[in-house]
Amino acid sequence: MENIIKHLNTNFDNSLEELKEYLRIPSISTSPEHSKDMVKCAEFLANKLRNIGLTNVEVFSTEKHPIVYGQWIGAPDKPTVLIYGHYDVQPVDPIEKWSFPPFEPKIEKGKLWGRGANDNKGQQFAHIKSVEAFFKNYGAPPVNVKFLIEGEEEIGSGSLSKFISKHKELLKCDAILISDTSMYAPGVPTITYGLRGLLYMEVEFSGPKADLHSGSFGGAVANPVNELAKMIAKLHDKNGRVTVPNFYKDVLRLSKAEKENFRRLKFSDAKFAKELGVKALAGEKGYTTLERLWVRPTLDCNGIVGGFTGEGAKTIIPSKASAKISMRLVPNQNPQKIAADFTKYVKSLAPEGIKVDVKMIHYGYPVVVPLEDKAVQTAAKAVSKAFGKKAVFTREGGSIPIVVEFMNQLKAPAILMGLGLDTDNIHSPNEHFELANLKKGMIASAYFLKEFSEMKG
Amino acid sequence: MENIIKHLNTNFDNSLEELKEYLRIPSISTSPEHSKDMVKCAEFLANKLRNIGLTNVEVFSTEKHPIVYGQWIGAPDKPTVLIYGHYDVQPVDPIEKWSFPPFEPKIEKGKLWGRGANDNKGQQFAHIKSVEAFFKNYGAPPVNVKFLIEGEEEIGSGSLSKFISKHKELLKCDAILISDTSMYAPGVPTITYGLRGLLYMEVEFSGPKADLHSGSFGGAVANPVNELAKMIAKLHDKNGRVTVPNFYKDVLRLSKAEKENFRRLKFSDAKFAKELGVKALAGEKGYTTLERLWVRPTLDCNGIVGGFTGEGAKTIIPSKASAKISMRLVPNQNPQKIAADFTKYVKSLAPEGIKVDVKMIHYGYPVVVPLEDKAVQTAAKAVSKAFGKKAVFTREGGSIPIVVEFMNQLKAPAILMGLGLDTDNIHSPNEHFELANLKKGMIASAYFLKEFSEMKG
Repeated sequence: MENIIKHLNTNFDNSLEELKEYLRIPSISTSPEHSKDMVKCAEFLANKLRNIGLTNVEVFSTEKHPIVYGQWIGAPDKPTVLIYGHYDVQPVDPIEKWSFPPFEPKIEKGKLWGRGANDNKGQQFAHIKSVEAFFKNYGAPPVNVKFLIEGEEEIGSGSLSKFISKHKELLKCDAILISDTSMYAPGVPTITYGLRGLLYMEVEFSGPKADLHSGSFGGAVANPVNELAKMIAKLHDKNGRVTVPNFYKDVLRLSKAEKENFRRLKFSDAKFAKELGVKALAGEKGYTTLERLWVRPTLDCNGIVGGFTGEGAKTIIPSKASAKISMRLVPNQNPQKIAADFTKYVKSLAPEGIKVDVKMIHYGYPVVVPLEDKAVQTAAKAVSKAFGKKAVFTREGGSIPIVVEFMNQLKAPAILMGLGLDTDNIHSPNEHFELANLKKGMIASAYFLKEFSEMKG
Repeated sequence: MENIIKHLNTNFDNSLEELKEYLRIPSISTSPEHSKDMVKCAEFLANKLRNIGLTNVEVFSTEKHPIVYGQWIGAPDKPTVLIYGHYDVQPVDPIEKWSFPPFEPKIEKGKLWGRGANDNKGQQFAHIKSVEAFFKNYGAPPVNVKFLIEGEEEIGSGSLSKFISKHKELLKCDAILISDTSMYAPGVPTITYGLRGLLYMEVEFSGPKADLHSGSFGGAVANPVNELAKMIAKLHDKNGRVTVPNFYKDVLRLSKAEKENFRRLKFSDAKFAKELGVKALAGEKGYTTLERLWVRPTLDCNGIVGGFTGEGAKTIIPSKASAKISMRLVPNQNPQKIAADFTKYVKSLAPEGIKVDVKMIHYGYPVVVPLEDKAVQTAAKAVSKAFGKKAVFTREGGSIPIVVEFMNQLKAPAILMGLGLDTDNIHSPNEHFELANLKKGMIASAYFLKEFSEMKG
């Protein structure tokens, strides 16, 4: 391992330059105008995988954005790890809030800045570089390695889901290694063993067939913006609980052991509120903040728009208004069942003069990995060594729907080795990634590959 | 009057040609690139007023667009009427929806087509031509006449407001005659005696200092979109009444006579709903549609925006959300008092984790002219004669803020003699004006001048 660590340290600056090149490609999966950038990004990545020494590197085209695959399976008596990542990134709006162009990455204050610096180009690079280090120093990694990097994570992994069920043999593995989560705190190595699921809906309320003059018509018709607001207001009760029928029916109760594990993490509400710039936290009554974030389901409006939104005044009753509403789900909630209940409920909340359209944008199941799994314990050891501190086990509020697919289809445990920080502004302006975490992440990845090679047989 | 009517009929085709010349000038007040056209239009109008026989015709320059004034005050023992209009027009976008070039007026299907054909060049032309007819036939009109035609009505009458308070003596009059409203129905002569006021506010809710990942943070913080929606929902009670404290305190109760007057208008809810493309009407319980439109105050969101509003999904808790919220006011509500109550109330409706900013965009007082006013009754007689049908008295839901200024500053009643139809597409593509209404409007104007001359002394 000494050679490997030395190699990673010596070549770190070069690695950063390569990563910056990767970040310069504006691979925003949700924007049709970036579809060419998605192809460009996939090709770039495929070349990178070929260059580090992988074989069978292929860019699979899909109905939407390409999937990149590469492998080295030269050790039939050793276990196989599937390393997953995504090369697509979130949109950059509000663009005016960035202090630099999001696709012109830079190194500053010990951080790498740019859209995708953390999520997920930066985090996945840790594994690419650790595998490369083994190839360069020993001609091969100590275990069989398969890389699978998709371009639709930020929009629901639609193509990857089909790809997995079609290529189960190709993707066969003993563990799935994913770095797409956060560390519990700066300097605290973390293995995440649970993720919330997601259900993302869009609701449109339509009233009069065109915008109306609010003077000539105000008082006579239901206003789609006001009615949409009323509907949204009804989605929570006064205790912050979601009112969609059956919403809590299948929710797994938190065990005493887990409650105790959470308590040991000594989460500070005051510090958290300060970091977010809010005077007070909020949410479902009767639960601690960590419980609300990790094991309780939630409902949030992600966006709303309707009528006149420019400078000054326009006196209209808007013809329509719409909102994006998403729910974070926990084991054992079923997103599809909840989508049906949500749709029916929302329609019941509109008055007669309003036409309601509800559509599902995407969903993902919640997941929890057994803590006692050997691969998970091996990963905890690896990060503990790399970061020089005992790893903690956490759950996370976010969703990686594909993790459930992986576990169900490939029958292997998923290891969530988060290298980012909550303060890295992923999905927001000024996204960044700590250089120290990137470097230690590379080393942790190397430790994992080494230790994992000794696990089987 | 026979000579006058004969003159107006005989010269109608020439009048139309003159009006078309007027319509060819693209006097769009909101567009800086049309500022030269505004001057050209004012000069054209001033020449027109000189040519019909008025004296002291002057183009007053202002901070923005010129104001045109002209008078004949040769009958000191007779009353004085101030005729108001505006030569500016609305923008023409969406230009692709016009079936002809908006500034190339044409006569077709008994209508004059072009931007400004109704609003307001066409309507004001009725008065210019009736005054001309008196000059041509009798050397002078039967009353003192003052024309005041501005170029900023479509952008808030900013300069006119100052002009009125500066020139109270010049503008002194016994009644203000305005044709800038609509007839109740085709063929039904109409005098409008009330307009609602307006209070236009903007509210912003701010939560976390940046957009947050809705997975990592959902459940822990107040979401500005959800909270804004909750606040908006609370602005009405279940009977559709506005809940802002003191909102209804000063509202003038509808008299029995007025209620009866409204009933006689035989308004059809079903027809109205069909025109607007809605399944059902809505609004404050306990009032008819006409009452809700004309004499009851309302509150509407004119626009709302927050978070991600593009295609697809972005899983954020937005940092902020804002809404434009306007209220239509009725006598004797005070917009400034209500603005203060609204601001305080809205702030009280937000939870601790949300920062609230409320600002007032603009306001205008409501107005009602006493029905029994002699000038108003005279106008009703005049339109009844010209249209051969008994006039109806209506109020209107919209606001013409300058009308209140006129009444307050000049201490004279305003007569709203609408000659247009709701279906004339003012402010929209393919604006037009019925030739029959233009001609009858000229005759109605002449009858009014004649009858008004007999009112005083």
